[in-house]
Amino acid sequence: MTFIIRREHFSAAHRLFIPEFSDEENFEVFGKCSNPNWHGHNYILFITIKGEPDPKTGLVIHLRHVSKLIDEKILKKIDHKNLNLEVDFLQGKVPTSENVAIGIWNELAGDISRFGGTLHCVRLEQSENNIIEYYGE
Amino acid sequence: MTFIIRREHFSAAHRLFIPEFSDEENFEVFGKCSNPNWHGHNYILFITIKGEPDPKTGLVIHLRHVSKLIDEKILKKIDHKNLNLEVDFLQGKVPTSENVAIGIWNELAGDISRFGGTLHCVRLEQSENNIIEYYGE
Amino acid sequence: MTFIIRREHFSAAHRLFIPEFSDEENFEVFGKCSNPNWHGHNYILFITIKGEPDPKTGLVIHLRHVSKLIDEKILKKIDHKNLNLEVDFLQGKVPTSENVAIGIWNELAGDISRFGGTLHCVRLEQSENNIIEYYGE
Amino acid sequence: MTFIIRREHFSAAHRLFIPEFSDEENFEVFGKCSNPNWHGHNYILFITIKGEPDPKTGLVIHLRHVSKLIDEKILKKIDHKNLNLEVDFLQGKVPTSENVAIGIWNELAGDISRFGGTLHCVRLEQSENNIIEYYGE
Amino acid sequence: MTFIIRREHFSAAHRLFIPEFSDEENFEVFGKCSNPNWHGHNYILFITIKGEPDPKTGLVIHLRHVSKLIDEKILKKIDHKNLNLEVDFLQGKVPTSENVAIGIWNELAGDISRFGGTLHCVRLEQSENNIIEYYGE
Amino acid sequence: MTFIIRREHFSAAHRLFIPEFSDEENFEVFGKCSNPNWHGHNYILFITIKGEPDPKTGLVIHLRHVSKLIDEKILKKIDHKNLNLEVDFLQGKVPTSENVAIGIWNELAGDISRFGGTLHCVRLEQSENNIIEYYGE
Repeated sequence: MTFIIRREHFSAAHRLFIPEFSDEENFEVFGKCSNPNWHGHNYILFITIKGEPDPKTGLVIHLRHVSKLIDEKILKKIDHKNLNLEVDFLQGKVPTSENVAIGIWNELAGDISRFGGTLHCVRLEQSENNIIEYYGE
Repeated sequence: MTFIIRREHFSAAHRLFIPEFSDEENFEVFGKCSNPNWHGHNYILFITIKGEPDPKTGLVIHLRHVSKLIDEKILKKIDHKNLNLEVDFLQGKVPTSENVAIGIWNELAGDISRFGGTLHCVRLEQSENNIIEYYGE
Repeated sequence: MTFIIRREHFSAAHRLFIPEFSDEENFEVFGKCSNPNWHGHNYILFITIKGEPDPKTGLVIHLRHVSKLIDEKILKKIDHKNLNLEVDFLQGKVPTSENVAIGIWNELAGDISRFGGTLHCVRLEQSENNIIEYYGE
Repeated sequence: MTFIIRREHFSAAHRLFIPEFSDEENFEVFGKCSNPNWHGHNYILFITIKGEPDPKTGLVIHLRHVSKLIDEKILKKIDHKNLNLEVDFLQGKVPTSENVAIGIWNELAGDISRFGGTLHCVRLEQSENNIIEYYGE
Repeated sequence: MTFIIRREHFSAAHRLFIPEFSDEENFEVFGKCSNPNWHGHNYILFITIKGEPDPKTGLVIHLRHVSKLIDEKILKKIDHKNLNLEVDFLQGKVPTSENVAIGIWNELAGDISRFGGTLHCVRLEQSENNIIEYYGE
Repeated sequence: MTFIIRREHFSAAHRLFIPEFSDEENFEVFGKCSNPNWHGHNYILFITIKGEPDPKTGLVIHLRHVSKLIDEKILKKIDHKNLNLEVDFLQGKVPTSENVAIGIWNELAGDISRFGGTLHCVRLEQSENNIIEYYGE
């Protein structure tokens, strides 16, 4: 079993809150992450793809394809954006790291299959201390 | 499957030795880590918890709870301490990274269940070159 | 000459723009950093203080004092906040890394003198690729 | 289940190309990595070994043995070398990270068994953005 | 005094040797870095520019300009290349980190002046353990 | 002006205390760093040397010489040791990072001159958050 991992990063603003909750209730659940004026992060993203190296090229998948795919399906929509207001695949979700990682998985999984690999893990580091890994359902 | 990973760190002194061995025998087994006058490390600790994001909040577990739990059950006992002399859950154990990781697992696993998650991995980096991962029995 | 450096970090949202400019003009000057819906960063902050180690204690300055000072004068105002809207010492400034670093310098310099050290450098890493260092006027 | 991970690093030159392809075809497949005049990397290598801590010593395996083994079987052959021309266990292979990781696995797996552990993973970071993990067949 | 620092990276092959020396003499001077079949590194480059923030924009210099300049004058010539054979500004020099840093300085200093800043430092990390800083003559 | 920086690391135990003080007084001054049972750190050490690159070799100084010197004069005495009890050049000093950095400077400065360079800075990172830089008197 061979896995190839691509690291990317993006910067974004967000706010964790449930619209039907008051600011006090949201602060109770999400702490300072519910600040109504937003805050933001430098996110580090690791995309892990499973596959077999091609016997001729020695490559599981062409990283240029993966990189271009992540750029078009994810980074262009999410980098230097507001995760609550501007990202189509996060609409109606609280933009926790969990939900962002799941959203990225759903955007990428099908296309990676088309390139001959299998999406294995989306790892999202919101800060050096707080990390999410999602392996699909 | 969603995993949430919390990074913490602590600094501690220790000595690797087996009491019934001579200093020479201990040096044979543990090398310079058996120095009778102690040495120490900055340990980096990663606690991985498995769970399902709450559909409403998008959170696997409240990180504040995890963080407070790690602080009370682990860091207060272990940070700026002597692993051989002062840590209740390491008594009678050689404080190798293996045993420290297992000890931390045993301290945390039950309480994390009570918060609705499942402890999945304790990763302990004793230095940038030497790392232990423990996944339970 | 001895320097002591304390590393801290904070997460914040911001937008680079000049109010009297149109969105197009702001985009021309600031690129994607002028996104009207904000974006954000994990900032890493290094505060360098110059001083002489006390002959008795071997310390230039008590780090607990420095750390508490940075927490009260900077982090409480700036962490998980919006740099454009919520930070008193940045009012009326475009919150570029340059201006944030200068603002932090002005907040800290006087108080550090009172502790017997001299503020030497504010280093602000907005991302791993973009860094500002400010050494005072 | 306990895993011990050892981090090592080496620097090497390589070129990705298939001998029967023209330079243009190789460039099509491998991009700038097919530069005929070579290029190179600082590789970071993580060797993960699975085992049970010895009840007496608390050690899964003696890291000195692992470290010496990696040094003799891998680093002496590969560090400051040309991966295409000088490494016996890569002869006839395109030295992609995939093939280098697989080659390292094949060199180490047997000897690690002899020390009482089981080779679990070879992780090879060719750069901070491109990483391979190999877990055996 | 305000400094802005831009981090970039490139990968390259090189060999340290003096043509009129024998392989033995070169090995005596440069150790394993004189391997005739080349080796290589991931270089990390930090370009520090001194200047005054513009009172209106709060920027010392437009990072897009700096980034584009480094890309055109340095990275396009040096990334995934052979430092001995392919880089015009290193011709006739032993490609030690010292000489590469000085070469980069000479390529960039004039153009940075034209953008209104002053090149202050070229920092080149050949590995995490070996670093050069050059501040001009 | 060219500077060459060598990174090394060591692990050690220490305790910050003034012998004529009570445990309470030491705790008042040094906080948890005065724990009578010791604690420890992984220290990262950066040695900066100033010099001119040799016109023939392109080297400021032979890193092998520097590395061997640091190993013999510093690391053999200090790595996996107790800074209070076992290090000759720290006798009678409180082993704060300030005093350790100054002690390392005094051990190295003369020998580096003999190799044709000038010791410029000793940087000692006791943790990722607490760093000392010493530039001589």
